[in-house]
Amino acid sequence: MLTAIYTAVGELVGEGADRISFPVIAERAGVNPTTLYRRWDDVNALLEEVAVAALTRDGESLPDTGSLEHDLAQWADIIARDITRPERVRYLRAMVSARVDIVSACPVTETRREQASKMVRRARERGEATPTVPQILDHVIAPLYYHVVFALPVDHEYARRLVHDVLTMVR
Amino acid sequence: MLTAIYTAVGELVGEGADRISFPVIAERAGVNPTTLYRRWDDVNALLEEVAVAALTRDGESLPDTGSLEHDLAQWADIIARDITRPERVRYLRAMVSARVDIVSACPVTETRREQASKMVRRARERGEATPTVPQILDHVIAPLYYHVVFALPVDHEYARRLVHDVLTMVR
Repeated sequence: MLTAIYTAVGELVGEGADRISFPVIAERAGVNPTTLYRRWDDVNALLEEVAVAALTRDGESLPDTGSLEHDLAQWADIIARDITRPERVRYLRAMVSARVDIVSACPVTETRREQASKMVRRARERGEATPTVPQILDHVIAPLYYHVVFALPVDHEYARRLVHDVLTMVR
Repeated sequence: MLTAIYTAVGELVGEGADRISFPVIAERAGVNPTTLYRRWDDVNALLEEVAVAALTRDGESLPDTGSLEHDLAQWADIIARDITRPERVRYLRAMVSARVDIVSACPVTETRREQASKMVRRARERGEATPTVPQILDHVIAPLYYHVVFALPVDHEYARRLVHDVLTMVR
């Protein structure tokens, strides 16, 4: 049933549906709306869960090159490619317009935080000086996503420049 | 007539209207929709013009304290306060969901770019070492707006941390 729900959400977002509500998703997935109301607080929570699941399913593997600089460069490239795919752009925009209340943690950011933490931890174990995890989120992740949601260009060069900048913070 | 149109857009955004289209704006403003189609390429262009106008009208004055560090700190605070106002948050979200095609320049970013350029120019004239204008946009502006559109908290401390980080880039 979860697969049907996820697929329905994916289809609706993919089609650029205007209003993605529980009844609309339930109808497409062939489930009872009550199921959705019971399981998720709101449509946004479901959208995010699907987006995070899609992120994982795409099998993004975390770079492990032996240097934080190269890890971050590859990681930023992977993210830049991923979040500029039309389907992902639509997800991100749907998420932005669905958000109303201030949240303490955004699941998409949390995924990136975990990934950054892992790379930073490995680098520190190797004795490398590193920027902090919040610095990586603020200065690599935030500008990449900012560009995508405001429809500004994102490319390899831009991703590299952000990584270069955040690394100067430790010198 | 422009005032009526701007006011109509402001009201609709303020009310959190679902679909802000030319006909909807025209009806509210009491003008012929043709006027809007002739003057603006799309609704998004109009929304942005109104947002930029509102920004200017609010009379944000650019800090000029005699040091880039203090200028940036005050500027980041002003922006943090401005873009977390409920009306501004709605504008930004409306803009994000209205955007479809990649743009080479986002008017909101351009306003910030001009402001940053002015402060950096003054600092260089005083002989201060400075980060570049793109670095200020990527590492102060982008994270602030990213937080707002993804509904993450933005406060004085956060704004200060970003300014501190971008300044370490020149050392």
